Amino acid sequence: MCRFVAYHGPPIRLDELLYAPEHSIVQQSTDARERPEPLNGDGWGVGWYEPERSPEPAVYREVRPAWSDENMRRISPLVETPVYLAHVRAASPGLAVHERNCHPFPGGERTLEDRRDRDPVVEGRHELLFAHNGVIGGYRDVVRRLREDLADEHYFAIRGSTDSEHAFALVQQYLGDAAADPTLDDLVDAVERTIEHVERLRVDVGARDDPTEANVCLTDGERVVATRYASANADSAQTLHVGEASGFVADDEYAGAVDPDGNAATVVASEPLFADDRVWRDVPRNHRVTVAADGTTRVAPLDVDVP
Amino acid sequence: MCRFVAYHGPPIRLDELLYAPEHSIVQQSTDARERPEPLNGDGWGVGWYEPERSPEPAVYREVRPAWSDENMRRISPLVETPVYLAHVRAASPGLAVHERNCHPFPGGERTLEDRRDRDPVVEGRHELLFAHNGVIGGYRDVVRRLREDLADEHYFAIRGSTDSEHAFALVQQYLGDAAADPTLDDLVDAVERTIEHVERLRVDVGARDDPTEANVCLTDGERVVATRYASANADSAQTLHVGEASGFVADDEYAGAVDPDGNAATVVASEPLFADDRVWRDVPRNHRVTVAADGTTRVAPLDVDVP
Amino acid sequence: MCRFVAYHGPPIRLDELLYAPEHSIVQQSTDARERPEPLNGDGWGVGWYEPERSPEPAVYREVRPAWSDENMRRISPLVETPVYLAHVRAASPGLAVHERNCHPFPGGERTLEDRRDRDPVVEGRHELLFAHNGVIGGYRDVVRRLREDLADEHYFAIRGSTDSEHAFALVQQYLGDAAADPTLDDLVDAVERTIEHVERLRVDVGARDDPTEANVCLTDGERVVATRYASANADSAQTLHVGEASGFVADDEYAGAVDPDGNAATVVASEPLFADDRVWRDVPRNHRVTVAADGTTRVAPLDVDVP
Amino acid sequence: MCRFVAYHGPPIRLDELLYAPEHSIVQQSTDARERPEPLNGDGWGVGWYEPERSPEPAVYREVRPAWSDENMRRISPLVETPVYLAHVRAASPGLAVHERNCHPFPGGERTLEDRRDRDPVVEGRHELLFAHNGVIGGYRDVVRRLREDLADEHYFAIRGSTDSEHAFALVQQYLGDAAADPTLDDLVDAVERTIEHVERLRVDVGARDDPTEANVCLTDGERVVATRYASANADSAQTLHVGEASGFVADDEYAGAVDPDGNAATVVASEPLFADDRVWRDVPRNHRVTVAADGTTRVAPLDVDVP
Repeated sequence: MCRFVAYHGPPIRLDELLYAPEHSIVQQSTDARERPEPLNGDGWGVGWYEPERSPEPAVYREVRPAWSDENMRRISPLVETPVYLAHVRAASPGLAVHERNCHPFPGGERTLEDRRDRDPVVEGRHELLFAHNGVIGGYRDVVRRLREDLADEHYFAIRGSTDSEHAFALVQQYLGDAAADPTLDDLVDAVERTIEHVERLRVDVGARDDPTEANVCLTDGERVVATRYASANADSAQTLHVGEASGFVADDEYAGAVDPDGNAATVVASEPLFADDRVWRDVPRNHRVTVAADGTTRVAPLDVDVP
Repeated sequence: MCRFVAYHGPPIRLDELLYAPEHSIVQQSTDARERPEPLNGDGWGVGWYEPERSPEPAVYREVRPAWSDENMRRISPLVETPVYLAHVRAASPGLAVHERNCHPFPGGERTLEDRRDRDPVVEGRHELLFAHNGVIGGYRDVVRRLREDLADEHYFAIRGSTDSEHAFALVQQYLGDAAADPTLDDLVDAVERTIEHVERLRVDVGARDDPTEANVCLTDGERVVATRYASANADSAQTLHVGEASGFVADDEYAGAVDPDGNAATVVASEPLFADDRVWRDVPRNHRVTVAADGTTRVAPLDVDVP
Repeated sequence: MCRFVAYHGPPIRLDELLYAPEHSIVQQSTDARERPEPLNGDGWGVGWYEPERSPEPAVYREVRPAWSDENMRRISPLVETPVYLAHVRAASPGLAVHERNCHPFPGGERTLEDRRDRDPVVEGRHELLFAHNGVIGGYRDVVRRLREDLADEHYFAIRGSTDSEHAFALVQQYLGDAAADPTLDDLVDAVERTIEHVERLRVDVGARDDPTEANVCLTDGERVVATRYASANADSAQTLHVGEASGFVADDEYAGAVDPDGNAATVVASEPLFADDRVWRDVPRNHRVTVAADGTTRVAPLDVDVP
Repeated sequence: MCRFVAYHGPPIRLDELLYAPEHSIVQQSTDARERPEPLNGDGWGVGWYEPERSPEPAVYREVRPAWSDENMRRISPLVETPVYLAHVRAASPGLAVHERNCHPFPGGERTLEDRRDRDPVVEGRHELLFAHNGVIGGYRDVVRRLREDLADEHYFAIRGSTDSEHAFALVQQYLGDAAADPTLDDLVDAVERTIEHVERLRVDVGARDDPTEANVCLTDGERVVATRYASANADSAQTLHVGEASGFVADDEYAGAVDPDGNAATVVASEPLFADDRVWRDVPRNHRVTVAADGTTRVAPLDVDVP
């Protein structure tokens, strides 16, 4: 279980929302409130876009906890980004704590041929970012089955060992050629098909009693999709919130500086970054948040057919 | 490509051979001589046994380089061990540098049922240690196929992403029930069957032109098996040496203190730890070194039937 | 602020008390109960003695949190030790999070001449271990002054930047030649003189309103001294507890296996490792716990003359 | 001993010179040619400016070696910077390997009052970057004396334990109020006075026979000063090179794309990043390179009066 935050809006200094809010994602690394265990100290990561510089996002992942990370404190003030995704990790029992298991995961368009001819460390083009908060029910067996369902190009792109990264490989497989230039519907569809796929596998491997929780966030740098999903027999779902405002600036502790009637900027977060009911609303269980390239933000039921 | 060293003999202080020889394994982390690239700086690891205390070895793996590791400098003088295995890593291109990819890997007797009920971090019983120097030809495709050939209990035991750890899973599968109390022949057989298996897969996936090099070392804490193997079309094989003496003590820089006619202690190493022709001999290509529980050391041709 | 635990008694497997108790020091890295902030995630360390093998303790320090550390989980079952000291760190604001700032610190008898001629990484002989929970009032100014009061041999032995390590340098300076073979009184006296020295400096630099908290633990591998000290104007003192029993074994969750009337084994800990009022008692403020070489455990008022 | 590289010129993508040249600074982390030991694997760091975003530079420092660092590979393509400074470290014996000892060090204008009231992790304003290749003769004794010569504001700003960071504190002390808006002469003067100061201390502490090597690089984001200095009795000085061109772009492996008659862009580097005699020239011993805000690059003798 983990916490994540995504931003979509006018370019913002990366440190603004990463550190300044009283309940920022870095604060949530020690003091998460909406899950039983407040600690998310098993590494963290931040990915961000500057589309005029590169189609691929920057990705920073660090196995040490967010709260004592000095590098990001000194890098983030120099970053201005219209879309970013950050994640603090609480490793599921049995899953290794190392950088390659930190979120967000980069991915996207690539071919096996490309991959083999290029720098082995940063292969292919990676225009997507993906993060996950939750756990796939029966995940070991599901992951084994899921691997078998992956084409080579997605199979070989997996670098770590989390259920999350495997789910992302499946998202990319469902995206297929659309990964190069996806519509919002493409992204939504790939995420929903992945949830269905994983849930079917879960039942197939006999883990019906072990529910899945899948709050995921996927972005191509222009659009954002986030879900709040839990299997029918799950007691509850991981929390998810969406905040909309004219902009998110730290003046006056956000309260005054934010025009709550504006909606140019959207934040999707496991927990609200500050208290302001005019800005934040809960995402209901089994719903998704979408932010279109033009900033239009919608909350709608997930369209998934699960066993 | 990497370097490793294994010791079998009278209990020895761990620091004696780890640091004191002029060409110790730690020295080889910066100045390996028998491979084109002298640097083995992508993490390291040490595993050791103290059988009167635990049937399972201690395992220390660290992603930072061996030469600047202060923990092992301060732990090793308090360890007395009859069998240990140390490894400095030079990561193959494209393979991640993190602790779970450092050698030696622990493994051994375990059942899936056991594994699930126990502490998720240290699962099952791990009485074996395994290290590898080399590379499996066509390894990505081979590893994908190899995974499919693994039973669940060995598949799920894999924690990292190296070809080496996958080969070790196959070794354990060939060992089967013998893993609980193996003979020397069991260990030799499991390693040889694994080499054959991997080499068959390599040809099956169309990587005939991409030769395998497999200098591996396997121990159960009482016996040691090490190989020097390369596919027929490999230009050369990774080096391997075996040293025998009455004991290895740092007095007088080894030369005088070692009785070269004695054979109570055996060291198997990618490179000799010091210069003394009375102690060290080369292991020929496609041969194996075995050290029996009573210390008997033999060098013999590998008995493998490879395509 | 931090948590620590020290053991003195019959040799014990290191993992027994490190991991097994329901409120072990590793558990306290996430769930400390007796300080306002439950998290001690800024690195940790363990030092232990095996006197028949070496007069110097093994020291393991790691900047990553205790809870996800796999190395110590795999090393500790092979260690049998009559005296050890472990510490989980919550870094004071502004103090760096890296290994050299993790406790316990090794130290002891050394000479400047020795130090310069030997391996630069592990210099001199280090027969003492020291850990600290608390903060020195006005510490930056105090530390600057304290440095000036140190003789070269102690000044140059400092490797990190914590107030704690500086206090330990002063302890060693007060120990002087006695560091080579200290009595229990020598250890007590050095700690008490250090508290007095630091408190005088604190007033001298004008930090009277910034109280010191000094729960320290010092051992030479045969004796243990621990303090619970706070300046007179401190609202409270860090907690300290002492547990005595015939032995600490994980059977039956300690309760039944421990003979509370026995006193062969002593544990000094920031928080009790398990609930059993027959075993544990609070150490009052401004008192010290001493464990003599023969195991005799005493709680007595600190004999310090502070401003 | 270490290697560094500084860039001053038209904004450049950070990855261009960091990775692309055949003898880039990352390549020099394993294969330095102009020092006896090719390895610079004890951590690394990169600092860069984007003045329209912040007056303070971004600073990224990592204790793991440059060659396996995936974060900078994924961040650097999104950075466009007119001035940056990168450094790969080979730790002097006895100096700790951790992030706070990695170069470049940030510093600059600050006051003690400011420092205490602000975020403890990133204190004051840090508009300067400093890196060092070499060693201060008699450094332990010199550093002790040097500390005593520092005013509180510079003394307390030191976070690590290297001689290099202490020298930088002295540079800042000589800069004084000019640190807020220095001229090129201010920067040169502060570096030269620091060399004189350190060299006088070296003789004072009786280390006349232990020569200093001080290839340092200092920048405020608009100007760069680098030195190639060695004490008179040093056998040789660390190497330093300066390259000038119309720009540094990876096309055609630099050779064709660079207009060697241009001088808009300057690189100062321990070793040339690629072979092109039209671009690179050696900096003579005891000379300095200066790059003015307008890009004017000069090599001139150091004006230092040393014993």
